[in-house]
Amino acid sequence: MAASSIRFGPGCTKEVGMDFKNLGAKKVMVVTDSTVAKLDAMKQVIEGLEKEGIAYEVYSKVRVEPKDHSIREAIDFAKPYAPDAFLAVGGGSVIDTAKLMNLYTSCPNADFLDFVNAPLGKGLPITEKLKPLIAVPTTAGTGSETTGTAIFDLVSKKAKTGIAHRNLKPTLGICDPLNTRTMPSAVHASSGLDVLCHSLESWTAIPYYERTPRPTNPINRPAYQGANPISDIFSLQALRSTVKYLPRAVKDPDDFEAQSNMLLAATLAGVGFGNAGVHLCHGMSYPISGQNPGYKHAGYAVETPIIPHGVSVAVTAPAVFKFTGASNPERHLAAAECFGVDISQVKAESAGEVLGEALAKFLVSLGDQPRGLKHMGFKREHVDELVEGTIPQQRVLMLAPNLDVQNVEEEREQLRGLFEEAMEY
Amino acid sequence: MAASSIRFGPGCTKEVGMDFKNLGAKKVMVVTDSTVAKLDAMKQVIEGLEKEGIAYEVYSKVRVEPKDHSIREAIDFAKPYAPDAFLAVGGGSVIDTAKLMNLYTSCPNADFLDFVNAPLGKGLPITEKLKPLIAVPTTAGTGSETTGTAIFDLVSKKAKTGIAHRNLKPTLGICDPLNTRTMPSAVHASSGLDVLCHSLESWTAIPYYERTPRPTNPINRPAYQGANPISDIFSLQALRSTVKYLPRAVKDPDDFEAQSNMLLAATLAGVGFGNAGVHLCHGMSYPISGQNPGYKHAGYAVETPIIPHGVSVAVTAPAVFKFTGASNPERHLAAAECFGVDISQVKAESAGEVLGEALAKFLVSLGDQPRGLKHMGFKREHVDELVEGTIPQQRVLMLAPNLDVQNVEEEREQLRGLFEEAMEY
Ligand SMILES: NC(=O)c1ccc[n+]([C@@H]2O[C@H](COP(=O)([O-])OP(=O)(O)OC[C@H]3O[C@@H](n4cnc5c(N)ncnc54)[C@H](O)[C@@H]3O)[C@@H](O)[C@H]2O)c1
Ligand SMILES: NC(=O)c1ccc[n+]([C@@H]2O[C@H](COP(=O)([O-])OP(=O)(O)OC[C@H]3O[C@@H](n4cnc5c(N)ncnc54)[C@H](O)[C@@H]3O)[C@@H](O)[C@H]2O)c1
Ligand SMILES: [Fe+2]
Ligand SMILES: [Fe+2]
Repeated sequence: MAASSIRFGPGCTKEVGMDFKNLGAKKVMVVTDSTVAKLDAMKQVIEGLEKEGIAYEVYSKVRVEPKDHSIREAIDFAKPYAPDAFLAVGGGSVIDTAKLMNLYTSCPNADFLDFVNAPLGKGLPITEKLKPLIAVPTTAGTGSETTGTAIFDLVSKKAKTGIAHRNLKPTLGICDPLNTRTMPSAVHASSGLDVLCHSLESWTAIPYYERTPRPTNPINRPAYQGANPISDIFSLQALRSTVKYLPRAVKDPDDFEAQSNMLLAATLAGVGFGNAGVHLCHGMSYPISGQNPGYKHAGYAVETPIIPHGVSVAVTAPAVFKFTGASNPERHLAAAECFGVDISQVKAESAGEVLGEALAKFLVSLGDQPRGLKHMGFKREHVDELVEGTIPQQRVLMLAPNLDVQNVEEEREQLRGLFEEAMEY
Repeated sequence: MAASSIRFGPGCTKEVGMDFKNLGAKKVMVVTDSTVAKLDAMKQVIEGLEKEGIAYEVYSKVRVEPKDHSIREAIDFAKPYAPDAFLAVGGGSVIDTAKLMNLYTSCPNADFLDFVNAPLGKGLPITEKLKPLIAVPTTAGTGSETTGTAIFDLVSKKAKTGIAHRNLKPTLGICDPLNTRTMPSAVHASSGLDVLCHSLESWTAIPYYERTPRPTNPINRPAYQGANPISDIFSLQALRSTVKYLPRAVKDPDDFEAQSNMLLAATLAGVGFGNAGVHLCHGMSYPISGQNPGYKHAGYAVETPIIPHGVSVAVTAPAVFKFTGASNPERHLAAAECFGVDISQVKAESAGEVLGEALAKFLVSLGDQPRGLKHMGFKREHVDELVEGTIPQQRVLMLAPNLDVQNVEEEREQLRGLFEEAMEY
């Protein structure tokens, strides 16, 4: 398990000036979006930088759920400033954009597609050591402050994809629960559903010793190595916390205890899935978001249609875990138990079904979630294109239990079945 | 929480040659003791180094439970070889010795006491970045492969002490359960009792927000910061595993599942206590080991008297947790529950007593443990010296709940009570 440094605690945001000083940074590129730019977290970090006399410039035009062109604009902004460190203040959209600004200013001659996951991009490993990046999450969701992943929409291919390499990992994640208090209820919910799927997918991913090919040199081992005894601890703990605290955090804006615990759960799940990987919910979510027929999720302060990442992963979850149940009934039952299901009488054959039902019930009780793809405007005729958009997500599909990745025709059939099942729950 | 890289899995020892190659190392100092030198783990690492054509020299004279003079000898051996990396293969004694060989070859002009914990040494921070150190634990105990601590006996002061700084942390810990199979049952037991106390002490240490003084600059934050939500996860999981698997690992040399889980628990507890800290069992253990009246623990292949570290921490545990119970009854009850105690009817006032009893029962059922200091040859007349040997252990005592560290007379009284209580359980 590779490591990430995390600081957790209310009020720790303002220390960021000292952190940059300790790193020897003199010129920091601060990355945020137009909403977060106005929040207290930004005020705290700017005060921290100014107190230490560190020069900085702010880029606040990050696009919510970034697209390749929004990332390119951000890179073009960063290059002439030539920062010696980066600071991301925001949700996954901001942190991911900052990772890529760091990557492409450190490798100025690289082509944009060089590092993008194959087969959409060339999937080259990052050999350069990047500049220090400190991430201050303001959502409790992606865990991007701990991972080596950056996700965006590759518009020409109508698919979300990304770049994954350990060198993208932030130097430090500053997890301050004071920063997530202002999230709208809809952002609490969708970023929390991302945590739910990170934990469930990494907990049920194929075990690390079954993942093939196994690179002989450990340095070539992928970030996503399959479920393992260390990731398990993070994933299961994050799952338990999410089931307990997400409904409270969504419903009561003053429930600071629930919000703090969700931020911690997001970070723990980030460490868990950042090592074990995610699988079907995430693999299928990328075409769902990329091929959005026009759905605009309520509560998001954006002008264009949007299926927020957390909503796009959770919508297939009841179908996915029903499907994967047979691969490891014990783990699926343990997960169902986290939702309060009495599993003492449940037969192993029903493990997937029972977990799928528990998930559907949880999503319904959370409120304001589309009860299936149908409710976002997807129709049966979209299924083929959704399947074709999923097939290239090899990096995560190879961790999916029960999926026949060796036989692409069979794999297509299985994915078709999953999308059809996910039309309504 | 600062990070450490860990690899876990049967058979991963042989990859160490590639790891050094990836680190660019050309000349490795291999550190071990005379028993471990003959084991398969050493064969694996030597083969790995030779396969990659990396030069190495072996130092196999590490003393079990090192003393200052044994550490100095090891440093004197390393200096002329001028290695560019270190590899420790063994238990805590070996890993700690290798950390100090690394430290003092990297800071050749430093005085031995410069970095030793105050007030016994000068307690200076380590400003030098040390050479890479890979640690391959062969016991399931200290967690030293994850921590920035090295412990030894300062003979002139008749006390165990050590050096603690994040720069001492190994670059990578290679946790291969194939390597712990050959431990004698007594070493399984005592190293496992170390895990038990690491997890219990870090779980019950004062919370991070009560620890004073709180350094303003995060870089000056100590390795031991008090219990916190991340260390809690590691500590509690390690405690659960130890209660479940240690008795099996001690009793059945062929129970590979139990042994693997104990190695993982040792590493997890290392991450937990390496961040949160330990307190009374460890603080009191240092004079217990250092002032040994002549006890020689059965099953240890050494010629001189020895109270193994794990035995010295566990012997006071029933008394310690009875004493600390009132500080946080909820946590003490949660710990008691890990031992299978039905806590539904237990009152908060009895939390410490209940946990203390559960611990005594666990130690007795493990077998071959001295049932108190009396059984190691300590008498009432030794108590004052034991107390005086504990007082300087400020670094850990400041994390002890319920202990009045502001008032040294009161503190002495409390410690005296604890040692007297620990005479017999
Ligand atoms: N890198 C990874 O490992 C990883 C993992 C999962 C998802 N992602 C990606 O992260 C993105 C989603 O990130 P997200 O869910 O964190 O949300 P986000 O960054 O897209 O933010 C969602 C909305 O909430 C607003 N917002 C954020 N914090 C706020 C606060 N404290 N108060 C008020 N408003 C706030 C933002 O301005 C935005 O409008 C997606 O692009 C997704 O694909 C990345
Ligand atoms: N650095 C830390 O964070 C930390 C924490 C706790 C304890 N310690 C220190 O670590 C030391 C104790 O270390 P330990 O408990 O790991 O034991 P150890 O290293 O002292 O070894 C105990 C005995 O077991 C033998 N041995 C080790 N592995 C074996 C194997 N696989 N097969 C057969 N024999 C084997 C050794 O040769 C030795 O005789 C003490 O000095 C203690 O103070 C350090
Ligand atoms: Fe996600
Ligand atoms: Fe210890």
